This record gives sequence, structure tokens and C-alpha cells, in this order.
Amino acid sequence: MKQPLTEEKVFKDPVHNYIHVQDTIIWRLINTKEFQRLRRIRQLGTSYFTFHGAEHSRFSHSLGVYEITRRIISQFERSGYGDWIPEERLLTLCAALLHDLGHGPFSHSIEEAFDMNHEDWTCRIILENTEITEILRDVEEDFPNKVASVISKTYEHAIVVNLVSSPLDADRMDYLLRDAYYTGVNYGTIDIDRILRVLRPYNGRVVVKESGMHAIEDYLMSRYQMYWQVYFHPVTRSSEIILRQIFRRAKELVQEEFNFKFMIEPLSDLFRGELTVEQYLLLDEALVQTAFMQWTLEEDELLSDLCNRFIHRKLYKYVEMENLDLETIDEIRRSFGAAGLHPEYDLEVDFPTDLPYDVFRPGEGFDSKQILLLDRQERLREISEVSDIVRSISGIHRGKYHLYFPQDKLDKAMAQLPSSIADLFRR
Amino acid sequence: MKQPLTEEKVFKDPVHNYIHVQDTIIWRLINTKEFQRLRRIRQLGTSYFTFHGAEHSRFSHSLGVYEITRRIISQFERSGYGDWIPEERLLTLCAALLHDLGHGPFSHSIEEAFDMNHEDWTCRIILENTEITEILRDVEEDFPNKVASVISKTYEHAIVVNLVSSPLDADRMDYLLRDAYYTGVNYGTIDIDRILRVLRPYNGRVVVKESGMHAIEDYLMSRYQMYWQVYFHPVTRSSEIILRQIFRRAKELVQEEFNFKFMIEPLSDLFRGELTVEQYLLLDEALVQTAFMQWTLEEDELLSDLCNRFIHRKLYKYVEMENLDLETIDEIRRSFGAAGLHPEYDLEVDFPTDLPYDVFRPGEGFDSKQILLLDRQERLREISEVSDIVRSISGIHRGKYHLYFPQDKLDKAMAQLPSSIADLFRR
Amino acid sequence: MKQPLTEEKVFKDPVHNYIHVQDTIIWRLINTKEFQRLRRIRQLGTSYFTFHGAEHSRFSHSLGVYEITRRIISQFERSGYGDWIPEERLLTLCAALLHDLGHGPFSHSIEEAFDMNHEDWTCRIILENTEITEILRDVEEDFPNKVASVISKTYEHAIVVNLVSSPLDADRMDYLLRDAYYTGVNYGTIDIDRILRVLRPYNGRVVVKESGMHAIEDYLMSRYQMYWQVYFHPVTRSSEIILRQIFRRAKELVQEEFNFKFMIEPLSDLFRGELTVEQYLLLDEALVQTAFMQWTLEEDELLSDLCNRFIHRKLYKYVEMENLDLETIDEIRRSFGAAGLHPEYDLEVDFPTDLPYDVFRPGEGFDSKQILLLDRQERLREISEVSDIVRSISGIHRGKYHLYFPQDKLDKAMAQLPSSIADLFRR
Amino acid sequence: MKQPLTEEKVFKDPVHNYIHVQDTIIWRLINTKEFQRLRRIRQLGTSYFTFHGAEHSRFSHSLGVYEITRRIISQFERSGYGDWIPEERLLTLCAALLHDLGHGPFSHSIEEAFDMNHEDWTCRIILENTEITEILRDVEEDFPNKVASVISKTYEHAIVVNLVSSPLDADRMDYLLRDAYYTGVNYGTIDIDRILRVLRPYNGRVVVKESGMHAIEDYLMSRYQMYWQVYFHPVTRSSEIILRQIFRRAKELVQEEFNFKFMIEPLSDLFRGELTVEQYLLLDEALVQTAFMQWTLEEDELLSDLCNRFIHRKLYKYVEMENLDLETIDEIRRSFGAAGLHPEYDLEVDFPTDLPYDVFRPGEGFDSKQILLLDRQERLREISEVSDIVRSISGIHRGKYHLYFPQDKLDKAMAQLPSSIADLFRR
Repeated sequence: MKQPLTEEKVFKDPVHNYIHVQDTIIWRLINTKEFQRLRRIRQLGTSYFTFHGAEHSRFSHSLGVYEITRRIISQFERSGYGDWIPEERLLTLCAALLHDLGHGPFSHSIEEAFDMNHEDWTCRIILENTEITEILRDVEEDFPNKVASVISKTYEHAIVVNLVSSPLDADRMDYLLRDAYYTGVNYGTIDIDRILRVLRPYNGRVVVKESGMHAIEDYLMSRYQMYWQVYFHPVTRSSEIILRQIFRRAKELVQEEFNFKFMIEPLSDLFRGELTVEQYLLLDEALVQTAFMQWTLEEDELLSDLCNRFIHRKLYKYVEMENLDLETIDEIRRSFGAAGLHPEYDLEVDFPTDLPYDVFRPGEGFDSKQILLLDRQERLREISEVSDIVRSISGIHRGKYHLYFPQDKLDKAMAQLPSSIADLFRR
Repeated sequence: MKQPLTEEKVFKDPVHNYIHVQDTIIWRLINTKEFQRLRRIRQLGTSYFTFHGAEHSRFSHSLGVYEITRRIISQFERSGYGDWIPEERLLTLCAALLHDLGHGPFSHSIEEAFDMNHEDWTCRIILENTEITEILRDVEEDFPNKVASVISKTYEHAIVVNLVSSPLDADRMDYLLRDAYYTGVNYGTIDIDRILRVLRPYNGRVVVKESGMHAIEDYLMSRYQMYWQVYFHPVTRSSEIILRQIFRRAKELVQEEFNFKFMIEPLSDLFRGELTVEQYLLLDEALVQTAFMQWTLEEDELLSDLCNRFIHRKLYKYVEMENLDLETIDEIRRSFGAAGLHPEYDLEVDFPTDLPYDVFRPGEGFDSKQILLLDRQERLREISEVSDIVRSISGIHRGKYHLYFPQDKLDKAMAQLPSSIADLFRR
Repeated sequence: MKQPLTEEKVFKDPVHNYIHVQDTIIWRLINTKEFQRLRRIRQLGTSYFTFHGAEHSRFSHSLGVYEITRRIISQFERSGYGDWIPEERLLTLCAALLHDLGHGPFSHSIEEAFDMNHEDWTCRIILENTEITEILRDVEEDFPNKVASVISKTYEHAIVVNLVSSPLDADRMDYLLRDAYYTGVNYGTIDIDRILRVLRPYNGRVVVKESGMHAIEDYLMSRYQMYWQVYFHPVTRSSEIILRQIFRRAKELVQEEFNFKFMIEPLSDLFRGELTVEQYLLLDEALVQTAFMQWTLEEDELLSDLCNRFIHRKLYKYVEMENLDLETIDEIRRSFGAAGLHPEYDLEVDFPTDLPYDVFRPGEGFDSKQILLLDRQERLREISEVSDIVRSISGIHRGKYHLYFPQDKLDKAMAQLPSSIADLFRR
Repeated sequence: MKQPLTEEKVFKDPVHNYIHVQDTIIWRLINTKEFQRLRRIRQLGTSYFTFHGAEHSRFSHSLGVYEITRRIISQFERSGYGDWIPEERLLTLCAALLHDLGHGPFSHSIEEAFDMNHEDWTCRIILENTEITEILRDVEEDFPNKVASVISKTYEHAIVVNLVSSPLDADRMDYLLRDAYYTGVNYGTIDIDRILRVLRPYNGRVVVKESGMHAIEDYLMSRYQMYWQVYFHPVTRSSEIILRQIFRRAKELVQEEFNFKFMIEPLSDLFRGELTVEQYLLLDEALVQTAFMQWTLEEDELLSDLCNRFIHRKLYKYVEMENLDLETIDEIRRSFGAAGLHPEYDLEVDFPTDLPYDVFRPGEGFDSKQILLLDRQERLREISEVSDIVRSISGIHRGKYHLYFPQDKLDKAMAQLPSSIADLFRR
């Protein structure tokens, strides 16, 4: 069952030109309904509100991650590097392809709102008798477990885990390139051919030939720019805030046994607690958007207002502040309450670096989150020891506070706010 | 109310780099809920099943059409061409921006299934008291009517109509560039700067300076290639067929008063007959996809099977035939029926040139569908008179018959089919 | 001596991203002085007068031809096609790399002026004891002869010859891409990955899988556009005319034993007759340009005027005529003579299709200049039988007459010309 | 004489798509022989030895600088910024276009070898009765002086000087984009549209709107990468070293009254001392290369060997050293001498940061070499105060010592070298 396809299949891809599929197993995995579902989940969540071109799906991205991994392995094999294990090729490719399988609609927001984790869902989908499970079992009985263990980073051969998740993995390379392409923000354009040329398998991890340091500097700078220009863009953050508020409000209403005009499975179960894999697979962005669209007609004003904002892109505005302490926040909330605004729904405080995004930060010993350079004397050094550029961006805890609020509501309440508070929101 | 914005606003766009908004009215139109709805309608319908990158929306495309129109007009104004009417600038821009406002979900298929027309809907949305109507009225009371008349091609100044719809209009230029960009098929890459440089307003229409003929040849060749490579791709056609079958089956079931487990407004009204503008605006692709997803669980096997095919991309296969007559089709349908297959749902005949796509074909007199060249002596000639290339593609009625069918069902019925029929489906 | 390099070497190339060198022989060939000389010969001769970016050398192009050939062969080998002969890999790569080795400065003009042929020179440089010869002999004694026979199309295995020269060879693909890139004219952008995917070795030649027909149509259209937009551009033709006139005048002067203030070897021998290989290798564009620069100071007014025009880009102007017969030309020349103009140097007639450029034209039987499609039934058909597009451009003998002349001189003589002649030159 | 052209003229340019010429004066300046001479001077000197695509000329670059300046001014005028002086448009454009007029062949090396300065030559060519001078005088008698004073940074209106030379000037933007395009090294790709959007004329200089800081960070990072990847590439440095050695040796020989087989004006005058403008304009890279080619046949072995190395790209090799003191260098030179090597010609020490390249380094007060950010409160801050990234690259004095030497000669002398010295050259 590990046989190659009789003729290579290709997908036309704007980022990599062609995605090359050479194995029957990969071809069959792509055609499962679990993998096809990723077409209905956007790669960048609500970023399309800021960058209208960013409507690409996790399906595209997953194919891209697979393709880059395929090229890395193919480079390793052509060069005959000793530290690569040729038998692990198919396992690595499957893990790369399926890596994001468990993402839900508007993934980061839904994970936060419901305390879920997409990696757990990925493993469950791989293991719990789906079409995916069945195909993987055709390789060998234990293959689903192996794939899941690569994804949960417990697989015995470290090099496989490292290829699939590390600061230089195919996932990050594809999303930088792809998000840059679809948003039109060219900061993400990295020289991937050059990067692939300088990667080496070494002692159970992927390291970088020292002469390739500049290519890695450029890659890390691209990530830095994409984070501040795209991923942390205040308009996107505003839409994520509204999204989370909708989930929060709907959950409250479900708990209060509010009588929804429109409710759809598996949403109500999601609000109540656990979902089965089967139910989870019914979740996609179409369903969430449809619910929101229908909820614009619900009687709960808060819910209906939030859904209107999301669907018609009437987002919260924001002011930026260099500093902000907890006391001030409390004070604002109190004043908001006194002025007839909702102390929580009408004010959100955001500080982008709080988010679990992964601008590279070197640690103390060598760990799997570091990028290591390999010099001619086979000496390993962590990149920020050698590169001033990397050192400079590693230490940056940049970020400003942003207060998000509904401008229209605030305008009406302005007269009731103490002027010290009101001034904060005037720009 | 025709005032310019105090500071130009921009949208980052991968195709045109920036979309420049300079008028308050344009800015306000973009922020209406009717225009924002276009984010939820894909530009290329089901093409994403063939080209996974083609997930871009009509919102992006509409901004692009606006931007190209803006550049054409700005070129006309800079060059001071006598035949351009500077007072029509804002009207032309509004019509360009709103041109596609009436598109429904999976537009071509839904229009075919329900005998609707997106241009009619565009005019209704412009005229029937929407946020759009209100903003246009701020220009002048009669402005909504003017915009609608440009779109329905009855506006008094022909040059405005010609700019918004003609074989060289901004609509076609944007979709070629944008569809090429998002599919990754580079045949659509046209030299838009060069084309813009050779356009001239002349006697109520846009013509081409003769020295620019090669740029137009290249543009028409790109369209030709995009039609055959992208728009008529058999996999896309297959998904459109399934889509239409779903609509057809659901309509039959509604008429038979079938008891749907899941039904949602305004879908049932759509199946029953007329929709109001308000209802129409609730229609988007999320809603259609959600209905299909839920219908995979309906008891009607035909509907549930079709929805499964669509949602999980288990499309019909096809065979290609050089010739096919009605008699043969009838014979196949009869044999299908006898073998337990559905004579209609299990067989669709497709002949791409039948579709109302607009590969350029010159007529006899000068009409608005022709491209005219203007030489130094101010003589006008239809381009195919001068260009062998254009003449050659104008006469092409190329196309092959395609029979679409469910491979799995057919396989089971194969033994019951007469061998002459069965052979047609073996490749 | 056929050994691979211990580590692959790369050249950074804007067109192909990287040129990959994997064989010691290829690496050594690139580093010979005969191959390095190609850095001093521009790929597009005088086209840089029209397209200022087109300053790229035959060195770049030769590397590109090598790289595309390498990719084609590597595709053949990966797919295990039976009709490819793996032992011929190195021979094919060497022939591809060295194919243009014999080009002289401003190649087409110098060949015409001195009745030489660059392919003959390529073979001589390969065979006559140069650094190239020596390296090829390290493969096997007879290897230089084999490489030369591929270039002169007499090598025993037709597939090798066909790979190196045919209407779909790597030479044409690289120059379209490269000339498009450096001129900035995007018509030459072809989908090379797609083309490479549809090539098949078959019965001693390279044919095209029928499903790839559109990619070939696009490629032939790109060539058509590049010929008319770039290669036949009237400004370039004007500079070529002046170049040939300089060579002609200098030759006349050498024969008249004119006393040049500046003369340099091997130019004088070139004017007198035969050159040795060693002398030929001294010829480059720097030398020709330096001679022209110095000759601006010669006492022969004709030569000095022509050289001034070339060096300072004061080219001849032109008028375009739909038709022109020999009689009219004679009449113009006579009137020119009578009016004090030079009847030959001051008038050049040009009809672009006369030139030995190779817009594809299908013949009657299958010959090596045809592109063949291979269908699923292993039937071969010449492409213009199947493609209307190709048929249309194959029959085109388009082209107009251009009269080139020195505007300043003509202006002064205008009063002495009969008005029927004078009118021809007024635009 | 300041009139616009009746019809805008364009040059096709791969970097900016089109260069737009709108003024008669600009058109006439481009067509002078002094400006056309820039076609014969490469933008990147000997970098083509490292990056074979980098064969572009200063002519292309000068047009590019003009075009970017034109776009900046046009943006200033459209936005109606108060601090811009509309009357200075033509002066600024002329200075931008002519800025590099005085560059000689292989400019940096020739300036170093002969202690010349291209800016002085630019001013002399503008002022000393050339075709350029004449055209500029057509604007007004004093216009040549004005243009020259902008170039020598003494013109009265600081904003004009600042536009033409500053850390964010059109010169730098064009060369980053152009060098990236022609080398194929994509690190130079900057978002020029975005940068142009954030520039503001303010108090006699060009500053940056604070919200555009990331675009400037990206621009400075691109410069940093281009310096280390392209401009300081050791292979390029090696060829520059050989170039300077040739000049040095030839000068010695001229002073010793060596009897050259080949000598050409104005080279001998260059070696003896001063050149007139007329002579200087005869200098181009064709002449230098031709001389070198001919000198490969001279009897002076040193000169002939160096010329062979340059013409046939047999460059010096190098070893890299983290540290190197003067004493060690002296010791190496002594050992070289003792071993029969030339103590100076056979060893060159290079430390890239010594070169007058301009990676941005902020000073203490505001000076013209700084980039200033303008915030909403119209406060100015130097960028490295605000940006950690910029601060990090500003402080970098990175660089390693490189020893360059002729490998073949060294190999022969190796046995005579003390082993401590010999070891330095073994890698």
C-alpha cells in the first residue's frame, strides 16, 4: 500500500506553481471528506476583513506544507545526508499534510472561546475511525498512531518531529509565502529555494549550514513584519474580538435557556460542552456565518448587534495607548457602566504580544524552538549568538495597548463620561 | 456630497497593489451591507474545486473593476481627450463599483436553476431603498436611476455605458488578471498598463489606438486561454452540474411538500417563487453550503447523495466525445433507465460553447460588442479585419461533448448496460 | 572523468532562480576562457537601443539553455520513459551548454556582413584545441566530435539532436523567458513547468502529450508576440542597418588601403578574409565598440558619420509602407543620387519577414521543424492540424516595408527631390 | 522652453514597467551623447562576475532614479503639501536624471586608483559646454549652475537637495530594486508604492509619516541584505582587486616609459594625470576591456597575468579571518617575498566595512543622513529611536578580514613558506 502513483498527479498552486503528489496514500488522504473540509476553513480567519484578498483556505495551506516537506526530503535524499532516515519519508509527508486537520472555523477565536486545542482534534480525527484513519491503516495497522505521535511531538525519531514542527518547518514557510501572496503584502516573500538548500538533517534535527545565515535572517525578518503588518493588524483584532463576544454571549444565552429563533447542530452542543469527532467535522465557517446571519434577527439585542457588526463589517474602533494599568482599566469599566454602556462587552483591552504567536525567541540551552547554525567544523551555534539582527528582534517585546469599543454607542454616552475618561477615546 | 475625501484611502490588493479611494461617496458605498455581502460570494463559483487557490470573492473583483475604471478615467483626464465628459466621472465609478452587486451564491448555476438574472437584481438593489440607494441619493435625487441605467445600458451618454460594459471593459480586465492570480494559471497575465495607454474615448465609445493592436491581440488570447483552461474546466463543470441537480431536486421536493429536516429562509421562498430584495440579500454561499451540509442527512436519497458529492467533492466523472447526436443521448438515457440508473440525474450532457460566455466574436456592422482600432487618419476598423490572430480565434466554435455521470453507480450498473453503451464510458 | 561534483554548485539566475551544476565536466567547461568570452557578447545585439534593460549576455542565456535541458532530461529519467537513452545525458548537456559558443559580436549583423555562420564557429571552437576541446577529450577521445555532431545535427541518435534543436528546444524556451525578463515585455512569459511536464521522448524526437496543446499554443503565441514586439522592432532594425553599413564601409576602406588612424587586430584580418580560431576568440563587443568610438575621428566622412550615429544613438528614421516594388526603390535611389544623397548608404529597405527568424511554419510531411502531438492512442499529429490558433499564425506572412534614412541629411536635400519621392518621407 | 511634450513618451522598463517622460527638456537630455554614454558603463561594475545577470547599465538606473523622483513629486503635488515648492519640479527632475552622469568605467575602482570623484565629473559635464549644458541653458542661462549646485548639495532650497540625496532618495530606491531584479537576489524587493505614500516634505526635507515606519524598516533591512549578499560579495571584491592592480601596474609601466604594444587615448593621459571633459567622455568600459584584452599579450608578465585573470575570470581566491593585525600582514608579506611571491601584488587584504558604502548609521543631532519620522503631533524623531530593528543594524560594524591571493602561484610557493603562514591559506 506504500506504492507510488503510476503517474504523478499535480495541483496547480499559485505559491509553489505545482504541488506534486507521487504516493497513492497521499492522493487518497487528500480526497477524504475530513481533508476536503479544510476548504471550508479560512487560513487567516477574519483577516479578510482587513486584507480582502486573504480568502484562502487551510486546504491550500495544507497542500503547501506537504509540498515544501516533500521538497526538503527530496533534497535530503538527493544529497544522501547520513542523518536522514529514508524509511520515514511517507510518515513525514502524511504528518505534514494532516498537521492542520483539526482546525475549526475561525480557529484561534473558537479555541479561545471554548478552551479547545486544534492539535488534539487533529489527533482525534486521525485516530477515531474516519476515512483518514482507514487509509492510514492501509499502510500498517499502527500507522495512524505513528502519524498522531509525530503531531503530538512524541514520535521516537526526533528528526521527523523536528521536520514537522520547528521554527524552520514547512508550516511556517508556507504560511509566510501564502499569506503574503493572498494579502498582497510583499514582506512575506522569502527565498524558499535558498532556504531549502541550506537545511541539513543533523543529530535528530534540522539545522542550517552557516553560510545560509543571511537567508534565515531574512526569513525571520519576514515573519516579524508579517506579524506586525498582518497577523496583529488592529482591524483583524477588532473582528476577532467581536467574534469572541458573539460566542460568549451565545453561550450565556444557551445557559440561560434563551429561546433562539435559529439554532443548528452541532452549535448547541458546542455551547453545552463536548462534541464527538463526527459532530466536530460538521463545523465549518459556512455554518458559523449562517448562524450569525440568522442571529442578526434574534431578540437579544446584544447578540443581534454583535452579529450585525460581524456580518456587515461594522467593527469596533480602537485607540492606541503606550501604557495602561489595571487600575485605569477598572476605572474605565466603571465609568462605562455608569454611563449606560456595558462594562465588558463595550470595552475590550488588547495587547498583541500576549497572544501565543511565535516570533522567534531564543532560550538558554539548545531546544527544539531554536534555530541552529552548523559551521564547517561541525560546530553548532544558536543563530542569535551569531546574528545581530536576530538578536535584536528576539528581545523585542514591542506592542501597544489597544482599547476597542463601539464608536456609535460611545458617541451617545460621551456626555455621561468623566472628561478624563472621555479624552482617552478622542483622537 | 460629491466631495473628495480629505485623505485618499487605500485597500491593499494583490492584483493592483493598491485600490485608491478618493471620493466620499465611493468610500461610503463600499461600507454598506449590500456591498459587504459580496465578500460572501465567490468570484469563480465552484472553480475552487479545480483550482484550490480560486477562493476570491466578488468583493475583491468589484474593487478591482472600480480601480481599473478610475485609472482609465484618470488617463483620459490627464490627456485631455475631447470625447470624454469629465462630469460623468463619479457616475462611471459608481456604476463600475456596483456592477456585480446583484450576484447570488454560485451565481451562474443559481441563475440557470431559477431563471434569474443578476443584472436585474443589481438594479433592484440600487433602486429599492437599500443603504446603497440612500447614499446615491445624497449625490442627487435621480442618481440611483442614472447608475441603474448605466448598468442596464440605457444611459444617455454612450461613452459611460461603453466604459462599464464592452469587450474591453474594466470588468473583463480585472477578472482575467484576478482569476489568473488566484488560480495560479499565468495565461491570464495581460499588460494592463499598456492597454490603458492605448485606449481612447472616441465618438461615444472606447476605441484602441492602432499601434496598440498587439496588446489587444494578447488580451484576447489570454481570454481564450482562460476560457479553455479555467472557466470551462471539466471538473468545474462537473461541480456546477451537481449544484444545479441539487437545486432541481430540492425544488421538486418542495413542490411535493417533502418534509425537510432542515430548511432555512429565504431558501424555501426561493424554491417557491419570488424573493424580495431584503430576502435576496440574505442569500450567500455560506447559507447555501450550510443547507447542503445539513441535507446530506435528509431521507431523500437522491438529494442526500448529491449534497454529499458536493460537500465532500465526490464529483461526477466524465468522458469526452467528438460528436454526439440527440438520438444517441436518448438511447443512453433509455439504457440507463433500464439498468436501474436515473435517466436524468445520472447523466448530464455538456457542450461548453453553449454557455453564455463571451469569447469575442465580431459581428457585421460596428456594434458595441466589437473592438475598434483607430489609425492615424482617424479611420476606424474592427480589429479582426486587421489582425489575423483575432480573426482566427473569432471563428472558432471549438468544443467537445462531455458526458458526466456518477462513476460508482455506473460501475454497479455496467453489467446491465448494452455493450455499445457501456463502451462509451470506458476509457 | 564523468564523475559528479562532490557538492552541487549553483549560479543565481533571475529567470530560473538557480542554475544547478552537478557534473565536473560542466563546471570545468563554464570556467574556460572560450565560454567566459560569451559574457562579452550581448544576447540581443543592439536591442538595448530600444529596450534599455536588454543588456544580458549570451553567457546568461547559455547557462539557461543548459538548465532547461537538465530539467527536461531529469523529468525524462524520473518518469522512466523508454525512448530516452540515459547514457546520452552528459553529451546532451554539453551540446546544450556550448550551442552558442561561436557567436560573434552583434552576431546577426556580423554574420550577414562577412558571410559567416556561428554554428561553424561553434564546431571549430569545440574541435580545434581550445580549453573546451581539452576538457571534452577528458570524457573520451572522440567526445569533442560527438558534441560537434550534435550541434551540426548529424549525431546518430536523433533524440539528442532533437533535444538540442527543434521548435520546442531549450534554446527557444530560454530566450523567450530571458528576453521577456530583461526587456520588461511580459508577452514572453511562458509556463515552462507546464511545458516540461507535457514533453515526451518518442521515436527519436521530443513530442507533446495532446492534453498539453494549450500550453504549446501559448508558447507559440508568445514567440509570435516577441518577434513583432521585440526582435523586429524598427528601432532595433535601424541600429542593425547602421551596424552593417559601418562594416561595409570599413571593408571598402580596407580594400582601398585607406590609412586608418585606428585599427586593431583581429579586425583588419576580418576585413581581409579568414580568421583563425585564436583570432576569432579575440573578437568581442568591447573591441567592436571601441573601434567604432575611435573611428568617429577618422577622416572618411561616411565612416565617421555612421560611427557617430551608432555610438551616440542618432539612428536612421523610417517610414512604413504597405507595398513597395523594385522599380520604386530604383527610382528613389536615383533621385537620392541626383539630390546629393548617397543612393545606397542613405537609403535602406527592410522587410522583416525576409530575416531568417523562425516563427513556426508547419511543412507537409513530419519533419524536425514540426511540433507533434501524441494522443492517448499513440497517434501523432502535427499541431496545426489540431489547433486553429497555430494554423492561423503559421500562415501569416505579415510584415510591412520600411525605408530607413538619415533624417538630417534628407531634410537638407528635400528641396531637390521630386515631390512624389519627397512625399513618401513625410509623415 | 519648459514646455511639456505634446504626447508623453515612455521607455519600457522591467523595474518600473514604464518610465514616463513629460517634458521636452528631459527628452532632449536623454538623447545627448553624454547621457547615452551611460549605456556603456555598468551599474554594478564587476558584479557580473558573481551574478551573471547583473549586466545592467547606469543608463537604466538613471532613468529609474528620474522616474521615482517624478512619482514622488507627483504625489507631493496631488496631495498639495505646503512644504513642497512646485516651481522646483523641473530642476529636481534634471538633477535626478543627471546625478550619475560623471561615473567612469568600473567606477569605484577607477576612482580609487586615480583619486577621482564622479560627482566632480558630473558637475564638469553639466557646466563645460557639452550637449547637456546647451540644453539646460535653454531653460535659463543659470540653469546648468543650479543643477550642478543641487548635485554638489549647495542649492538654496534644501528640499531639492534632500530629494536628490538623502538616505531615502530615489537613487537608493532604484538601485535596490534594480540590482535585486538583475542579480535575481530577491532581498532587494521593497514596497516602493508604500514608501512613496508615506513620504512628506517637511521643513526643507523629506520625512516619513510615523505609521509608515515598518515600510522603512523593511527598506533598511533590504539594503543591509543587499550589501552583504551582493555589494560586498567576495568574488566581486576579488575582481575589483585585480582591476585596481591592473590600473596600478599600468600606471607604473607608463611612468617607467614601458613600451606598450597597445595603448589608446585617453588611457595614457589618464595614467599621466589630468583629463579634459572631452577626453573623459571617451572613457567607457568597452575601451577599458579592450585595452585589458590587448594587454594580455604585453611582455610585462605581471600586467599580462593580471589582464588574463580579469578577462578570463581566473580571479584570486580568498581566505576569511575573524581578526588580523598589521604585524601579521607584514609578516605574511615578508614571507611571500622570501618565497618568490610578490609581496604586494600577490596579497591583498580586504575588510569590507572600510568601503564608503552607506549602510545607514544615525548620528547625534538631526542631520541630512538621518531618516526622520513625523507623528500625528508633528513631532520629529530619528527612526532608530523608535525602531529596535533599525537600532540593531545601525550599530553593526560587522565584517571579516579577507586575504586575496593567486591560488596557482601560491600553490607553487607553498613549500617555501613558514608553516604558520602556509596554514593560514589552507582551508
